[in-house]
Amino acid sequence: MIDRAIFASILKPERILWREADRLTYDADGVTLEKFSPSLVLIPETKAELIAAARICLQHKLPIVTRGAGTGLSGGALAVAENTVLLVTTRLNKILEIDRENLSARVEPGVVNTHLSRAAKPYGLYFAPDPSSGAACTIGGNIAENAGGPHCLKYGATAEHILELEVLFPNGELRIVDGEHNAALFSLLIGSEGTLGIVTEARVRLLQIPEAVVTLLMEFETPRQASETVSAIIESGIVPAALEMIDREVLGALEAAFHLGFPLDAGALLIVELDGRKHSIERLTSQVIEHAERLGVKSIRRAKDEKERDALWKARKRAFGALGRLSPSYYTQDGVIPRHTLPDVLEKIAEIGKRYSLRIANIFHAGDGNLHPAILYDERDPAQVTAVLAASAEILKLCIAQGGSITGEHGVGIEKQEALGWMFAPVDIDMMRAVREVFNPNGLLNPGKFLPSDHSCREVGIKHRKVGV
Amino acid sequence: MIDRAIFASILKPERILWREADRLTYDADGVTLEKFSPSLVLIPETKAELIAAARICLQHKLPIVTRGAGTGLSGGALAVAENTVLLVTTRLNKILEIDRENLSARVEPGVVNTHLSRAAKPYGLYFAPDPSSGAACTIGGNIAENAGGPHCLKYGATAEHILELEVLFPNGELRIVDGEHNAALFSLLIGSEGTLGIVTEARVRLLQIPEAVVTLLMEFETPRQASETVSAIIESGIVPAALEMIDREVLGALEAAFHLGFPLDAGALLIVELDGRKHSIERLTSQVIEHAERLGVKSIRRAKDEKERDALWKARKRAFGALGRLSPSYYTQDGVIPRHTLPDVLEKIAEIGKRYSLRIANIFHAGDGNLHPAILYDERDPAQVTAVLAASAEILKLCIAQGGSITGEHGVGIEKQEALGWMFAPVDIDMMRAVREVFNPNGLLNPGKFLPSDHSCREVGIKHRKVGV
Repeated sequence: MIDRAIFASILKPERILWREADRLTYDADGVTLEKFSPSLVLIPETKAELIAAARICLQHKLPIVTRGAGTGLSGGALAVAENTVLLVTTRLNKILEIDRENLSARVEPGVVNTHLSRAAKPYGLYFAPDPSSGAACTIGGNIAENAGGPHCLKYGATAEHILELEVLFPNGELRIVDGEHNAALFSLLIGSEGTLGIVTEARVRLLQIPEAVVTLLMEFETPRQASETVSAIIESGIVPAALEMIDREVLGALEAAFHLGFPLDAGALLIVELDGRKHSIERLTSQVIEHAERLGVKSIRRAKDEKERDALWKARKRAFGALGRLSPSYYTQDGVIPRHTLPDVLEKIAEIGKRYSLRIANIFHAGDGNLHPAILYDERDPAQVTAVLAASAEILKLCIAQGGSITGEHGVGIEKQEALGWMFAPVDIDMMRAVREVFNPNGLLNPGKFLPSDHSCREVGIKHRKVGV
Repeated sequence: MIDRAIFASILKPERILWREADRLTYDADGVTLEKFSPSLVLIPETKAELIAAARICLQHKLPIVTRGAGTGLSGGALAVAENTVLLVTTRLNKILEIDRENLSARVEPGVVNTHLSRAAKPYGLYFAPDPSSGAACTIGGNIAENAGGPHCLKYGATAEHILELEVLFPNGELRIVDGEHNAALFSLLIGSEGTLGIVTEARVRLLQIPEAVVTLLMEFETPRQASETVSAIIESGIVPAALEMIDREVLGALEAAFHLGFPLDAGALLIVELDGRKHSIERLTSQVIEHAERLGVKSIRRAKDEKERDALWKARKRAFGALGRLSPSYYTQDGVIPRHTLPDVLEKIAEIGKRYSLRIANIFHAGDGNLHPAILYDERDPAQVTAVLAASAEILKLCIAQGGSITGEHGVGIEKQEALGWMFAPVDIDMMRAVREVFNPNGLLNPGKFLPSDHSCREVGIKHRKVGV
């Protein structure tokens, strides 16, 4: 039990949640993983409150988990350790400045991802990272997880869009870390999943809204043809803004949910989005179409206006929700592979599914080889749960064997700590741990996350993900 | 004295240099700084020899400085500490593989920068980082210093062109560090000036040689007009491959040295290089020319072929050498400023020069705000030396006050350790030091560099740079 009185001089009483019913609201993340109820939830309303509350936790050696909207997909925002204080940043949601001349904005950590782009639109600017949870997730969370999204193919993940962080370190120091002046520390912080410091403010990069956008929906007989088209486009030197693949399982679910007129007998769909200057985009579009035609595309549809384009992206971003039409539960991975291995890896994933008698649906960022195979199952059947676990491990090991990675954009959290050991030798993980201990020597910041813990190499298996975000 | 017999089983006798005359060959770097003669020089011929020699040094607690061609500009490759073993990588100069499909190459650390581009040319590829010392400097050195060059405006510095490093850490472990899998450690290593590990092999990114290149030489009445043109081009969303500025002092020296027909009465010249696809480059060129004309350009010359372009770049890259026509010595800085402050900062630098009665010549990467003001002086006059020191410090402090940095591409080395303290608070430097100590706890790798040392905040002032590279 934490004595909540230690925060009484800092936060309003209604911003200190200690009753079980209130705390339970914060026991899950973006998908329902194992539940972990925090001991205390603090909801600061100003930066000064956030800093003061965190410093009190540090003084009292209370573990801290900083949490934004809780939309994460690997358990990073869950209160795993006993006596954890959850610091919720959602009320720190002010956009402090939009600097048109320097193409940047200053934001509090709880600003919702898409709210920033909405506020920047009158200036002709936007914030590029676009995770599917954009309408809810916070920029602080994007920074902690180095979040991706479909348009990261061309524009890079969150790390490439942050200019400066104000960070409270576990030694109580509040420091500015500038991406240009202190590039090494900056790189350590972004994607450190809340284990090195607490972001109290950020200066982020804004991009100019592109002059012209073309969005194509391409239908193929087979996933192999679609994959080969992906490779051909990229190898020709064209970098689309986004290049997404949807397999037959997913497109059936999407069509049932959104009625966009997808061809239900297609073997795979590609969404190819190009953006840039008006004078060059039609030429690039023709080149992309030529590649697809050479590789046997069945049909190509072009979004006729912004409304049609938005409908397509909305469907794409809600695809995992739509999978609820196919099965009671799903379990998705976040593996990365070299793009040229895509056709083979997709076939091998299908084989793994067959071997375990599991349906696997694929919708993913094909352009950068970031797979999200969703294994469909019924969590009430223990035999299926065991099979899903084994199949997932095989898929991640397959990604590693191709020279890929166990995570592209979802992070390690508590979900992939074991898998981290499949990718890195103990000596490599020891190095990472030693660097972490420089900043977080008492392990008070987000304990039990990311790196397997020293004393107990906690086995983290499957979490039951219920469909419906 | 080091007992050189400990290396006898590893290296051929002629690869162990211990005589004073031999060691003196390695006492300087790219410009003549203070001299530091190493205690022993080892020149391994294979990776296995490099690793074995380094491990023996570590076992015997001998300080190691890894050195490529010794062209660095901040003292990083100098043997500052007593009993230092210099590990010279120049014979590890094999290009092990060029992988056309994956646009990459595997190289030993001693491969000369331009040799890689030359070898990649038949495949239509090249290595983008292009420091002025490219014909001599090694890729290992480029990695250690995160070297830049004119074309880093569009393509980024060395860090963006390295995919994977094989590194010998001071604990004796040889590890692969992959830029995608272990991004944080990777970012720490590149630009760490040899203080965290020894690069024994690297996989680097190669780019496709652009389809079309246009190089313009623009003449302006005043540096302010030239600066405003730089800002206008970048703000319009065009990213030239390179955007260099040359002031009147430098162009006089260049013309005298290379006879390229520069207009001697110009206030400033800009070199603007555009590259990309044939179909869009003429349009971009017109836009650039429009900006320049609106801002009062006097004349524009376009390089008519590759030969003319090469001559122009050769002159640019030898500019500092040409300054020898103007004065017996020069001292140059490597400050960075936000681009929009360029016109004001150039005027303030001129004022500083006047105040100290010193001529200052400017030739620099204008597009990314990386200044190289060269202060001309005579090192035989102690009063001038004092003035140069004071003026240099003022210039760096001016850069910091603009929100800039004390180094863009030359590194900190022994030259800017004191200036690091002008930019960072002690607590920030302590954090950097703590991270370094994770890897290099005994300080055996490149001691006395980069961070001011714990015990003695060594005052590093001006080094006498003789003209002529």
